[in-house]
Amino acid sequence: MIDVVQLAEDLIACPSVTPARGVVFDCLEARLRPLGFEVHRKISGDAPDGPVENLFAIRKGPEGSRHFAFAGHLDVVPPGEGWTSGPFLPERRGELLYGRGAVDMKGAIAAMIAAAEQVPADAGTLSMILTGDEEGPAKYGTLALMDTMQELGAVPDLCLVGEPTSSARLGDTMKIGRRGSVNIWLEVEGREGHVAYPHLADNPAPRLVAMLAELDALKLDNGTEWFQASNLEITDIAIGNPATNVIPPKASARISIRFNALHTGQELADRVSAIAARHGGTARAVISGEAFITLPGDFSAMIADAVKAETGIEPEASTTGGTSDARFLKNLCPVIEFGLCNATMHKRDEAVAIADLEALARIYARVAEAALAR
Amino acid sequence: MIDVVQLAEDLIACPSVTPARGVVFDCLEARLRPLGFEVHRKISGDAPDGPVENLFAIRKGPEGSRHFAFAGHLDVVPPGEGWTSGPFLPERRGELLYGRGAVDMKGAIAAMIAAAEQVPADAGTLSMILTGDEEGPAKYGTLALMDTMQELGAVPDLCLVGEPTSSARLGDTMKIGRRGSVNIWLEVEGREGHVAYPHLADNPAPRLVAMLAELDALKLDNGTEWFQASNLEITDIAIGNPATNVIPPKASARISIRFNALHTGQELADRVSAIAARHGGTARAVISGEAFITLPGDFSAMIADAVKAETGIEPEASTTGGTSDARFLKNLCPVIEFGLCNATMHKRDEAVAIADLEALARIYARVAEAALAR
Ligand SMILES: [Zn+2]
Ligand SMILES: [Zn+2]
Repeated sequence: MIDVVQLAEDLIACPSVTPARGVVFDCLEARLRPLGFEVHRKISGDAPDGPVENLFAIRKGPEGSRHFAFAGHLDVVPPGEGWTSGPFLPERRGELLYGRGAVDMKGAIAAMIAAAEQVPADAGTLSMILTGDEEGPAKYGTLALMDTMQELGAVPDLCLVGEPTSSARLGDTMKIGRRGSVNIWLEVEGREGHVAYPHLADNPAPRLVAMLAELDALKLDNGTEWFQASNLEITDIAIGNPATNVIPPKASARISIRFNALHTGQELADRVSAIAARHGGTARAVISGEAFITLPGDFSAMIADAVKAETGIEPEASTTGGTSDARFLKNLCPVIEFGLCNATMHKRDEAVAIADLEALARIYARVAEAALAR
Repeated sequence: MIDVVQLAEDLIACPSVTPARGVVFDCLEARLRPLGFEVHRKISGDAPDGPVENLFAIRKGPEGSRHFAFAGHLDVVPPGEGWTSGPFLPERRGELLYGRGAVDMKGAIAAMIAAAEQVPADAGTLSMILTGDEEGPAKYGTLALMDTMQELGAVPDLCLVGEPTSSARLGDTMKIGRRGSVNIWLEVEGREGHVAYPHLADNPAPRLVAMLAELDALKLDNGTEWFQASNLEITDIAIGNPATNVIPPKASARISIRFNALHTGQELADRVSAIAARHGGTARAVISGEAFITLPGDFSAMIADAVKAETGIEPEASTTGGTSDARFLKNLCPVIEFGLCNATMHKRDEAVAIADLEALARIYARVAEAALAR
């Protein structure tokens, strides 16, 4: 039987700062094959956002059986300075296992594999969607694996992403959706001149200020049953004029909108463009991800039941926080995220409770069995 | 008799990029002493805005006579690239004399000296207030000479500053006032955070935007009989946040106000501070100069008469444009600025019409005689 803590240690011991390559995938493949998984490794993309290594593993169930997928990432954020022990030298101290990726999310991947061992091979089709660049640009990671899955005719019925969604204790939160995100660069052109002769110049700053005031006053929505209100933040303003007596030729700004499922990135980009144009400016949008929601129902109930059986608590269904690869996977099937406590993620001395790793493996096994049984 | 064109050439040939030092003052002193002037040279100030060399020359008239002063600067702005002939190698081509300072304002200083030769020594007290840093920070120039004049008990009754005030042709414009100028740095502090968790952060940008919108909407005044309306320009805005997903901790901006004699720099600074405070920000003002006006009257009439006699045209009394050392001298006595055509000032191939130099010397002589005769 797989020791989930030992496996988590083995994965942490393979340094895999984003984008992950090589050894960490070898380590994983070596555990998956004995469990009956077919392993597809694929390197995708070119510089600057590639190449990226990814892995899709599948253990096919009987003809006509359901297909349940675990998804996650093997890359980790850079460790930074100041660790008590080496970030890639996993160390158990007391009830905790320390190391970069302990909760985000090598610990969860270890739990998925331990769970897979517990699920009978004839219960249905089980797969693992494991990317090497979730923490990076995410351009050639999960998206590339989704192509592979389409080619293999291996599209799951349900997918659980193992991001660290728990907050104060394991099991308190699952993410049934995430807000979308769009960044928009705004620019207003004017005509440079001397402050003593404003009629010969055209100051772009007042138009940018009026544009930003209008954007800041926008009330995008009041939130929904499952989402907070969409929110717009001004993240930068720049003119870059060192001369006190010069009217600048150009003024620019950047905003970031986190939006719920009442919007699409494109609709918001168009709306901001129209406001920018009204103030004589332009807007250039980059959509990082659309909002997604898997409405509470059978799938969330399966997860809640499994969590309750192992921890005694009822997870809250949340849609807060940043983005994850669930924004892509939602195009394949219903997706929910559930995983370890996120208090130390992306920080120094990232650590997971050893008991949580063991409980998570049992929770994942229960979810997989329930999902395949339907 | 002094050849005003030759003297202008001699002065141009002494390179004196701001701050002026040494040779150009020697050249001047050598011309002033034979005309009966007492010459006071003084080096004032420390780094970074000093030391600066200045010269005050005085030819005392009979006891109780009036005192008329010419004022100007010997420093010039850097020549820059692309001159047809050397900027410090004066060259006559056709009807023009080329060289850095030809109009701003070594030509005018040559005209003042030529004029002084024409004014009888017993007509009254004549003086020259000549600074070396009008084009620089102007901290240790005219202000330092004003101290010298106070010490010598030599405060003039009227002062003419020889800045190039003429526009399309010599004589069309004199400056009876100048607007004041104040630059104000604005800052709003907030609390940095992640755009996905705005409730944990405090974005300073919306407050800065609201502050700038309010400042931009201010109507300071409608102008006066002699002044344009005061004007506020946003000259810079800066946040400096490269991260699209970060709410910035601080936002800042800079404004420039050119104001007429209905205001003081301090009053405007206080008003802007109050608006900044209302939006949770702070304002730091640097007043470059107060507005000044010498209302049309005897002095402007003397200049207009002299101009008309020599050029046939009537000068317009203007208060437009940037600042000059008249902003300081107005604290001594009524001040008006009149000089050469400014089309080429601060540009490459700066040039003065030779005929204008000669006419200006005659105009200055007429003004000095009229001012001393009253
Ligand atoms: Zn993660
Ligand atoms: Zn000048």
